[in-house]
Amino acid sequence: MDAAEFRRRGKEMVDYVADYLEKIEERPVYPDLEPGYLRDLIPTEAPCEPESFEDLMQDVERVIMPGITHWHSPNFFAYFPAASSYPAMLADMLCGAIGCIGFSWAASPACTELETVMLDWLGKMLQLPECFIAGTHGHGGGVIQSTASEATLMSLLAARCKAVRRVQAVESERSESDVLSKLVAYTSDQAHSSVERAALIGAVMMRKVPTDEHFAVREEMLKKMVEEDKAAGLIPFYFCATLGTTPSCAFDHITKLGPLCNKENMWMHIDAAYAGSAFICPEFRPLLNGIEYADSFNFNPHKWLLINFDCSTMWVKKRTDIIGAFKMEPLYLKHENQERFRSLKMWFVFRLYGLKGLQAHIRKQVALAKEFESLVQADNRFEICAEVILGLVCFRLKGSNELNQNLLKRITKSREIHLVPCQLSGRFVLRFAICARTTESRHIQRAWRHITQLAFELLQEQE
Amino acid sequence: MDAAEFRRRGKEMVDYVADYLEKIEERPVYPDLEPGYLRDLIPTEAPCEPESFEDLMQDVERVIMPGITHWHSPNFFAYFPAASSYPAMLADMLCGAIGCIGFSWAASPACTELETVMLDWLGKMLQLPECFIAGTHGHGGGVIQSTASEATLMSLLAARCKAVRRVQAVESERSESDVLSKLVAYTSDQAHSSVERAALIGAVMMRKVPTDEHFAVREEMLKKMVEEDKAAGLIPFYFCATLGTTPSCAFDHITKLGPLCNKENMWMHIDAAYAGSAFICPEFRPLLNGIEYADSFNFNPHKWLLINFDCSTMWVKKRTDIIGAFKMEPLYLKHENQERFRSLKMWFVFRLYGLKGLQAHIRKQVALAKEFESLVQADNRFEICAEVILGLVCFRLKGSNELNQNLLKRITKSREIHLVPCQLSGRFVLRFAICARTTESRHIQRAWRHITQLAFELLQEQE
Repeated sequence: MDAAEFRRRGKEMVDYVADYLEKIEERPVYPDLEPGYLRDLIPTEAPCEPESFEDLMQDVERVIMPGITHWHSPNFFAYFPAASSYPAMLADMLCGAIGCIGFSWAASPACTELETVMLDWLGKMLQLPECFIAGTHGHGGGVIQSTASEATLMSLLAARCKAVRRVQAVESERSESDVLSKLVAYTSDQAHSSVERAALIGAVMMRKVPTDEHFAVREEMLKKMVEEDKAAGLIPFYFCATLGTTPSCAFDHITKLGPLCNKENMWMHIDAAYAGSAFICPEFRPLLNGIEYADSFNFNPHKWLLINFDCSTMWVKKRTDIIGAFKMEPLYLKHENQERFRSLKMWFVFRLYGLKGLQAHIRKQVALAKEFESLVQADNRFEICAEVILGLVCFRLKGSNELNQNLLKRITKSREIHLVPCQLSGRFVLRFAICARTTESRHIQRAWRHITQLAFELLQEQE
Repeated sequence: MDAAEFRRRGKEMVDYVADYLEKIEERPVYPDLEPGYLRDLIPTEAPCEPESFEDLMQDVERVIMPGITHWHSPNFFAYFPAASSYPAMLADMLCGAIGCIGFSWAASPACTELETVMLDWLGKMLQLPECFIAGTHGHGGGVIQSTASEATLMSLLAARCKAVRRVQAVESERSESDVLSKLVAYTSDQAHSSVERAALIGAVMMRKVPTDEHFAVREEMLKKMVEEDKAAGLIPFYFCATLGTTPSCAFDHITKLGPLCNKENMWMHIDAAYAGSAFICPEFRPLLNGIEYADSFNFNPHKWLLINFDCSTMWVKKRTDIIGAFKMEPLYLKHENQERFRSLKMWFVFRLYGLKGLQAHIRKQVALAKEFESLVQADNRFEICAEVILGLVCFRLKGSNELNQNLLKRITKSREIHLVPCQLSGRFVLRFAICARTTESRHIQRAWRHITQLAFELLQEQE
């Protein structure tokens, strides 16, 4: 394919993409097929000779589209949102053309530098303390990671390195492996599985801190565990706090946990993967209070800030902590993952939406969640299972787990809307997350009518 | 930006991309500016109100383009290639629109399934042993990773887990941390720094195996180290072989190293990041002989197989080894990194090029390297520093390191072509890699004229 054909096919693809997104409601949100469906639809080997673009695009409809869960359908309320916007898609096209690999300044100066400045822009939108902003006299700054999991792992490794050095500085005879075997990390029992996985990779113990009735970690509980562990000869070194947990969007009490971590020489990392985007709105910024105690902070603009995957932003208070952990040069480390020019997407989205446009997006989605919450509250067959703070509503039919499992089965089978469940204190709960950029009040109303209709049928059958 | 505006702007962007790539030779391949140049060219904060697309695109030329190292210029001969092709860009556009996050089958069935089948297609192109192909009765299969570094880390962690279990199965009283402190991994002294970094992350020892006069690891040397280490009470558990090293594209002797690793119960991972793409050509496939002894194998189609970053393909012989290491469900693990629909790029490229088209691309670039090698060989002021097997030529002026450093400085400063150096046995060497898809014989000839002209001036000044 030469440039002339790309001009033609590229423009066709732009129309295909626009058509897909404009008419996405016409497609069932969730596919109706069994695992393994695809292998039978395509050859077992790559073709030897080139095929035509027309044949390929026909196969996109024949092979791919029937197997898509349409994350950008306004009827998709599962997981958390996957951000998407036209400006980000345009930036991705440019990014693909430039196709640089930014593993050092020289390999791509603009890529390295725009990233640093975009992280400052975003940090200022969040009103991060100045020590996290690179363009100041502080020692901090931000980088783009692929996922929150990657950010968690990096923070845990940096904390591990720092802890080993600190212990060995006073007890020089202790071996690294002895110190490692005594290190203990903590996180909420509501934290994402990737936090536990980071400890598994880093070969350190991790303990789950029980949460309160709001599914949040409180200072007392962590303090108790730290004291017990210290008494047992262990070395507490890391706490991963969550702002906006995956099951219910709960917030750990970082204003109290932060001082505790600082006092105990424990690295505090804050994972705000979903909720972080909301902090650009002054009314939600208090949820981030306590950030000043953190050593590192991460959230995913690719979840809720209209920037297509992948764009997970991470800030550290002391760049040298991260650099030290990997014994590598700052510039090499900065792009240790040899990434694409991802900051272009941030630049395009920030400029074409403006801060006000981004805030409007967050506020609209929170309002839609509140609208759904009101509908649930007005129906006494249902109950709300966790405080609705941002764009997620946890709810269930009053009754058994089995009843709610059956309700969800019917919802999934109907394929009109798509939800996933969670467990809260042993109860099977339905999660209703406002996801697509194009979700409007009418989708919420229709979704609720659909859910109540299925619930009505289910309850009638039960009687 | 709504769909109507996206249709307009998207088509403008398609033309911008085609123009950029068609006229890329007119731009200096390497930027002429100092670190920190960008911060002064843009505001210190994001705009509050939306800006216009026209302003943004003007800034792409004003702010971004002057800071780009043009990896797809036919005058770019640095590092290794970053793959790029129009079919892959079209697939990326579609991928961005679908915007699914494939962390489980249900989250995106087509994404999960196409990936498995594309890895089979590619595995068959490489004539991998059947045990690595998922669509057989074997226990292996492939997944896409972001980078070779990620694949190395995952293989090391799987090997670590397996080794700990194996030791504890016979010595049940030994603690995990005791076993961990005795594990030792090996790799070539020519291996990429990410291999060492994987050991650092995994908290295990790593020893560098010295290489022979061809910069390759031979069986004897590894055997000697393993025996010494075992005698010292250590537990050898992992060897990362390299096929096509970063400095000189050297190949470790895996046909001999493989049986040694198998015998010693050491996991053998093969990192063929750059060279792997060439194995789709029957004449280069013998370089992969010995793959049958490997536990895992990885290469980067995003380097040399016309599939835009990121697409690093990894196969394992036993899927359960990887799954066991992370104590997680197969489907969850498969997409533990919550990735985009990257297999679409593979599907587009494989079908629109066909195997023959891909082979032609590899063969053309190897021929260009041979052409450059001949030019160097015909000039007795220069010498070839490593056997030219694929698309990389290591060469230098006969003389001191300083002389060659000065030559490279002049090349870099001229900005007509771009190269990077390497160290081989203490000697400063220039690396000339065939990178851009559009590089032709005339670019090789012109690059050589340019290099010899600068060398002539340098040598004259020295006299």
